[in-house]
Amino acid sequence: MEQQEAAIKTWLIENRLKGIQLLQRLVQEKSVRSEESKAQALIIEKLRRMGLTLDIWEIGGSELINHPIFSSDRKHFYGNPNVVGVWKGTGGGRSIILNGHIDVVPEGDLNDWKEDPYGGVVQDGRLFGRGSTDMKGGTVSLLLAIEAIKSSRIKLKGDVIFQSVIEEESGGAGTLAAVLRGYRADGAIIPEPSSMKVFPKQQGSMWFRMTVKGKSAHGGTRYEGTSAIEKMMVVISEILQLEKVRNEKITDPLYAKIPIPIPINIGKIQSGEWPSSVPDLAVIEGRMGVAPNETLMKARDEMETCLARLREKDEWFQHYPVKIEWFGGNWLPGAIDESHPLIQTISRSYQKIKGDPPIIEASPWGTDGGILSNIGDTPVVVFGPGTTEVAHDSNEYIILDHVFQAAEIIALTILEWCSGES
Amino acid sequence: MEQQEAAIKTWLIENRLKGIQLLQRLVQEKSVRSEESKAQALIIEKLRRMGLTLDIWEIGGSELINHPIFSSDRKHFYGNPNVVGVWKGTGGGRSIILNGHIDVVPEGDLNDWKEDPYGGVVQDGRLFGRGSTDMKGGTVSLLLAIEAIKSSRIKLKGDVIFQSVIEEESGGAGTLAAVLRGYRADGAIIPEPSSMKVFPKQQGSMWFRMTVKGKSAHGGTRYEGTSAIEKMMVVISEILQLEKVRNEKITDPLYAKIPIPIPINIGKIQSGEWPSSVPDLAVIEGRMGVAPNETLMKARDEMETCLARLREKDEWFQHYPVKIEWFGGNWLPGAIDESHPLIQTISRSYQKIKGDPPIIEASPWGTDGGILSNIGDTPVVVFGPGTTEVAHDSNEYIILDHVFQAAEIIALTILEWCSGES
Repeated sequence: MEQQEAAIKTWLIENRLKGIQLLQRLVQEKSVRSEESKAQALIIEKLRRMGLTLDIWEIGGSELINHPIFSSDRKHFYGNPNVVGVWKGTGGGRSIILNGHIDVVPEGDLNDWKEDPYGGVVQDGRLFGRGSTDMKGGTVSLLLAIEAIKSSRIKLKGDVIFQSVIEEESGGAGTLAAVLRGYRADGAIIPEPSSMKVFPKQQGSMWFRMTVKGKSAHGGTRYEGTSAIEKMMVVISEILQLEKVRNEKITDPLYAKIPIPIPINIGKIQSGEWPSSVPDLAVIEGRMGVAPNETLMKARDEMETCLARLREKDEWFQHYPVKIEWFGGNWLPGAIDESHPLIQTISRSYQKIKGDPPIIEASPWGTDGGILSNIGDTPVVVFGPGTTEVAHDSNEYIILDHVFQAAEIIALTILEWCSGES
Repeated sequence: MEQQEAAIKTWLIENRLKGIQLLQRLVQEKSVRSEESKAQALIIEKLRRMGLTLDIWEIGGSELINHPIFSSDRKHFYGNPNVVGVWKGTGGGRSIILNGHIDVVPEGDLNDWKEDPYGGVVQDGRLFGRGSTDMKGGTVSLLLAIEAIKSSRIKLKGDVIFQSVIEEESGGAGTLAAVLRGYRADGAIIPEPSSMKVFPKQQGSMWFRMTVKGKSAHGGTRYEGTSAIEKMMVVISEILQLEKVRNEKITDPLYAKIPIPIPINIGKIQSGEWPSSVPDLAVIEGRMGVAPNETLMKARDEMETCLARLREKDEWFQHYPVKIEWFGGNWLPGAIDESHPLIQTISRSYQKIKGDPPIIEASPWGTDGGILSNIGDTPVVVFGPGTTEVAHDSNEYIILDHVFQAAEIIALTILEWCSGES
């Protein structure tokens, strides 16, 4: 196996430029929601050249739409397919799913970007752009890993199933569709931006929308109205308090270094139409983190109890209770034990390349891993080259060395995993 | 004069139904900004039938646009004219401007309306709809007052100048254009919704837009970002504190019964694009009240000093100071003395109709009176039939009896004022 590992290393060094160019081209395709097709076309072209068996399909259909955890407010998925490439093993070995999502979140305030968010500029060993870290860099690591093994003429016993899915940022309908299509394996790697840490446990999360009522009036006699903005501030303070209480209960050592293990993020607010009117409606949208050992339902209950408590603190809410909807994305939490062979294998590979063992933590966000493990019965590890703190941020970047290190670690993991007996 | 007053009373009783129908038709025309033309067409038709000399023009031109107090973010005013109707006096008498605005604010959340906001439903002596109180009811009182006098074949010495202007809700460009066109008088009545109170002093006001920065991050690691929403809440709390301090300084007895004489209203907020991202930008829009004896500039200074103080309280604002723009509407404050003949005249008329003297207070909002008095050198009283607390609110209504009482009081005021020597 040492010879094979050396061949992989050499191939990765020789093909560094091609890898960077592929990532650059992927970042240049702005694959925000409903616009994933051009980036998927690049993936398809790459998989074809690599000689994988392609499965390209537009997700949908009643089995998907009616699945209890299906979650998407998208009207249709036409023209923006899921893409799977399969490299069949010689037989008898452990199979592996390598899953990356192609969708990226919007770029935010353009003024905050030093460079074009879809330029893919390379500077000081970093490649900049929306999606570079979350998670086209990770997807490139997967593709490089497979190509490095294949090009080194290594034969694997187990199947390698590469997936480039849509909708991860909005609730995981792409991965759910892949599971329902029958894709399952003995293990899965999702190279979300873990900053090269290994995450055996993944936080779940779900989106909420709250509607807070006020009573409108002319701004000059604002005391005759009730500002929905001021009431919204009361609601937000209460949510922050709930976040505090929930996080104090987290004792899992994998979360020891994470300031807020399961955050409640207020992502979006909107209220009012006119500077001189007291607003009568405020809408809050956000994301609630769910602990790996918690159910979505239990977390929802805690939030709804918190909102009900507002009635005791402020009479206004007795008359106008805050309305809550759980809409759009929800990501199931997931967890495998640290002693699971998949964690052991990836940790060994990591140590071979980096010298030290990896940092093992719990993921600060939900991933499609919750669906793969809970619905697809496939054990999942999250490990990727992206930098956690720049995901969703302006000036998002990825450290190129990490893309190639992750590619090598993943290649070695595949090599060991798929050579082993299933 | 008693005979004339009796004739006016009789005419108003006999024409009650026609008055209600006119108000109903005006409310049914949704004259929000840039859509004032159909409601103005009704006014034009009415003035034509009454035999007034019409002046209809689309406002604009360099004198208006370059005027130091001109304020409008509207691209153009084509198709939505100002309307003035003049009834020339026989000469030598005091002239009067009767000014109403035809624009209404948006209706807000439709779910809060029991009836169609543009239905003009009459129920229990009230007429419901956006603009009924603010201020089409007042405009109908003006039209009824003029028609009652004219139909009673009374001749006045002074000119009566009726104005139906656009843009009052957005900064007064319509009245400014009328002043620049040369319309001035010895006195003016603006029947804004004063709840039948007499306002010799009017609060000024202006609009502001604040931009608060945050630092975006993924919601699952929100501690790596800084929420623009949380920083916005700090800014709003500071503004509410400034409002408190400013209002404690108001000692004018005309404000004695007003809970917040010069409010600072937060009318509109917007932040964030994605439930799972930490928002990096929040925008606040609002309206700052300006005391009758204060300048806009002094009030602006106080707000800007307040924002500068934030830097001492929270280091974030040292790096990312809150940006403020004074945009869109600004309404000059205005004041005449309680002993002014115009206040005396309207108070006498009020007492004749209602038995008791009127409540004299300071207006809780800016009106076009600031422009008429400061730029047009015309003393102004605000007195109207609308109900102050339902202006800009859902289920806005007007008490129909007040429309006719105000019409009679205004008719008697015109009669006395324009019969007197100038």
